[in-house]
Amino acid sequence: MPALGEIATALNLELRGDPARPIDALAPLEKASPEHLTFVSEKRHLSKLSLTQAGAVILHPDWVDQWSGCALLSDTPYVAYAKATQIFDNHPGAAGVVHDRAVVSSKARLGTAVTIDAGAHVEENVFLGDRVWIGAGAFVGQGAQIGDDTVIKPNAVICHAVKIGARCTIHPNATIGADGFGFAPAPEGWTKIQQLASVDIGNDVEIGANSTVDRGALEDTVVEDGVIIDNLVQIGHGVRVGTRTAIAAQVGISGGTQIGARCVIAGQAGMAGHLTIADDVHIGGQGRVASSVTEPGHYSSGTPVQPLRAWLRNASRFTQLDKIVRRLVALEKAVGLEQGGDQDA
Amino acid sequence: MPALGEIATALNLELRGDPARPIDALAPLEKASPEHLTFVSEKRHLSKLSLTQAGAVILHPDWVDQWSGCALLSDTPYVAYAKATQIFDNHPGAAGVVHDRAVVSSKARLGTAVTIDAGAHVEENVFLGDRVWIGAGAFVGQGAQIGDDTVIKPNAVICHAVKIGARCTIHPNATIGADGFGFAPAPEGWTKIQQLASVDIGNDVEIGANSTVDRGALEDTVVEDGVIIDNLVQIGHGVRVGTRTAIAAQVGISGGTQIGARCVIAGQAGMAGHLTIADDVHIGGQGRVASSVTEPGHYSSGTPVQPLRAWLRNASRFTQLDKIVRRLVALEKAVGLEQGGDQDA
Amino acid sequence: MPALGEIATALNLELRGDPARPIDALAPLEKASPEHLTFVSEKRHLSKLSLTQAGAVILHPDWVDQWSGCALLSDTPYVAYAKATQIFDNHPGAAGVVHDRAVVSSKARLGTAVTIDAGAHVEENVFLGDRVWIGAGAFVGQGAQIGDDTVIKPNAVICHAVKIGARCTIHPNATIGADGFGFAPAPEGWTKIQQLASVDIGNDVEIGANSTVDRGALEDTVVEDGVIIDNLVQIGHGVRVGTRTAIAAQVGISGGTQIGARCVIAGQAGMAGHLTIADDVHIGGQGRVASSVTEPGHYSSGTPVQPLRAWLRNASRFTQLDKIVRRLVALEKAVGLEQGGDQDA
Repeated sequence: MPALGEIATALNLELRGDPARPIDALAPLEKASPEHLTFVSEKRHLSKLSLTQAGAVILHPDWVDQWSGCALLSDTPYVAYAKATQIFDNHPGAAGVVHDRAVVSSKARLGTAVTIDAGAHVEENVFLGDRVWIGAGAFVGQGAQIGDDTVIKPNAVICHAVKIGARCTIHPNATIGADGFGFAPAPEGWTKIQQLASVDIGNDVEIGANSTVDRGALEDTVVEDGVIIDNLVQIGHGVRVGTRTAIAAQVGISGGTQIGARCVIAGQAGMAGHLTIADDVHIGGQGRVASSVTEPGHYSSGTPVQPLRAWLRNASRFTQLDKIVRRLVALEKAVGLEQGGDQDA
Repeated sequence: MPALGEIATALNLELRGDPARPIDALAPLEKASPEHLTFVSEKRHLSKLSLTQAGAVILHPDWVDQWSGCALLSDTPYVAYAKATQIFDNHPGAAGVVHDRAVVSSKARLGTAVTIDAGAHVEENVFLGDRVWIGAGAFVGQGAQIGDDTVIKPNAVICHAVKIGARCTIHPNATIGADGFGFAPAPEGWTKIQQLASVDIGNDVEIGANSTVDRGALEDTVVEDGVIIDNLVQIGHGVRVGTRTAIAAQVGISGGTQIGARCVIAGQAGMAGHLTIADDVHIGGQGRVASSVTEPGHYSSGTPVQPLRAWLRNASRFTQLDKIVRRLVALEKAVGLEQGGDQDA
Repeated sequence: MPALGEIATALNLELRGDPARPIDALAPLEKASPEHLTFVSEKRHLSKLSLTQAGAVILHPDWVDQWSGCALLSDTPYVAYAKATQIFDNHPGAAGVVHDRAVVSSKARLGTAVTIDAGAHVEENVFLGDRVWIGAGAFVGQGAQIGDDTVIKPNAVICHAVKIGARCTIHPNATIGADGFGFAPAPEGWTKIQQLASVDIGNDVEIGANSTVDRGALEDTVVEDGVIIDNLVQIGHGVRVGTRTAIAAQVGISGGTQIGARCVIAGQAGMAGHLTIADDVHIGGQGRVASSVTEPGHYSSGTPVQPLRAWLRNASRFTQLDKIVRRLVALEKAVGLEQGGDQDA
């Protein structure tokens, strides 16, 4: 239970109020009690300040006259809140030892203070950096390399020859380096294209639970430094995800697509294969990206949910849309309102 | 092999016909043989009765004159069929013992008749209720609590401090309580928001294979009593799923969204974050829910599949739809058919 | 490191050039060096031939005058490339033994040269054919049957009574035979429909990482010979997937749907339940298939991504589309351009 002053020091923030005030926990604005620290990260939430019971608030210096209690002042209150969660982190720590029920090849090389939990399997020629933590039941295949301080959570599978950088987290049941989906259509059926390349993941990458990153056929699938990937995401073979791009849950990226830096791909969006996506592109939820995107900016697709009856009528009209426009053009001609002889709307 | 009369007694249904008739198995109407019990749950399937070879049929009392053979009469034939499947259940049972290849912390507390299969890992301060069954290779992290009669299937991962109620089933390779997707954008990259809260799952909940339910940042993710969740579903951090809501495969619910009771969310639907969905809302397959839904009822979105060539034309017109309406308005003006000066359709 | 002539012999292809040329590896056209073999599978890539540094190229005999170097001639260059990847396959091989940390029931029956890796669990009455490989941490439930040369990758779960044919690959963290999503709505909540049937997978099938194939309620879920299924795919209970059909990542097939032979279902497409899909149907990415498809051919649905601002306007118009058409019809009447008294576009 740190005192408020200790938190201010740890986060390097200006403190207003009593540095000795004990802080039990972080809590949201609406639910915070006097023993809690909370935060306001957006102006539109300032109105809730008058109702909070929080003992202290992280907020922007410009907003400080709207709150009379203890405060930690930050130009980036949301980042300050993120750093505060790290002070209160309650995740179990690593044991720092190899469990006697782990199975570790004598030909694996381990750095210092490595943890390998019960039931984990580390195959030959694997290299694990310092303080790497392989969770219970996780699998690390032949020749895989895992950088310092990276955590492989329980039951995740890291296939042979996969490279993962430092300070990454691979969440439970994720699969890194399974075969890309490559088959050639032959008269006698699908002929397997062996996936001969691997996966190369940079530093400070997080990959969510039950996500899959496939190994490449001839070239590695690449996830660059600082990328964050949510749960149940599919990254196809030969894809490159540029630095600091964020990919939300259930997104699918088809093989060979190259995604730029600092993109944000919202949930359930899908990208066709062999596209190029520029830096700083934001794709909305369920976005259907079937061709390359060359300009930064926000993009979306799809239609909004409506009451079923209305939707049925409108969706049915969608299948006639081209005909509808042709009728509009005919009307324009009849009325003398032509659009320069152009059939396009 | 129960006799028909025993089934009638077990299901508390009125029997018409020979109670001694042996019943081997349940079978669908079209494929049933004389040793099988079948059912009709909807009026539109009554016409198939004349063709079935079934030895006995579960049906509604109102329909009984359409069938001359043995019958079990139920006002809710589909529920009666569901209960009949429980009589014929053929899933392997629990061993009732802790396998010597399981790894169980001496600081875990176990109820009576607990089963822990080979390769499962139960960490310290875990509490397992009576008759809990932890499948092979499953992981139960520090401090997790699992209620009576709950089954955790093989290779599922239950992270630290997760609470699961009684009579739940967590299917294989599901991940409950991995970190929610929380990061603050800082100049030096994404700053991790530690997910300090947990997951709280009620009683009688079923969560499908390879689904993920994330732990909360400051408040628990909550799945209320009687909820059923299919495979490959993503439940984001801080979400609340109201009692008896059903969520089909590959649905994604973004962080903080509050879903009411008795909702039905069809496959691949997606919800943005921080929405409120009323009770008794039904969302169609692939529904794109980007704002709150305040009224019960059926909602849908998207467009139907069409032959590719027609779709390409119509989809292209969709990107011009606003311009098309403006042309329509101009035409209406030219013809003197104005809509009250309103630009909306 | 085979010589080019050896590759030509293995692939049964005509060689032009020096059979003694050593070939290190396969590489893509743009990145190949003189020690590499590459390929051209489509005419539109022929223009890149002039720039490649490759030591040899697989190409069609018709194109041979466009390349002066060493060549392997094939009428189906993409299939020849696929077969070449098999020569260079670098996946770790099976140990051919049962690891002493595997848990294998004494009542399981094993063919010759079976591999069972550490932490795998093979339950009673399982049958494993010759050369079957059960990966680390994988689970094979009671009574499951697995044909010759099939590989179950690490941490995959094969539930009780599932049948898998010969030469299949089930990738990591896949779940085959978990319960289908069957519940009857009763006044007291959802009543579980026990899933009494199983899953029947043919020969030469590949199922991707973290995919799920559910067991049937009364009839088996069937995946026929030669089907290929990518990652994170959901196959509902009672579905049948016809021979050689290909299903890309994150596709969902709802219960009872019958899919024909040689279909191609692109990523994130979804099918409602109890549909019938003809042979040779191709569904585009994110396709929304809500009714049966009786004719072979290419189908698609959805709308393309657009810049957000334009999309918001167009998507809003979509919700008015039926009204828009009614206004068009009114205009046509006013102008005397009626469509034969028909309200449809």
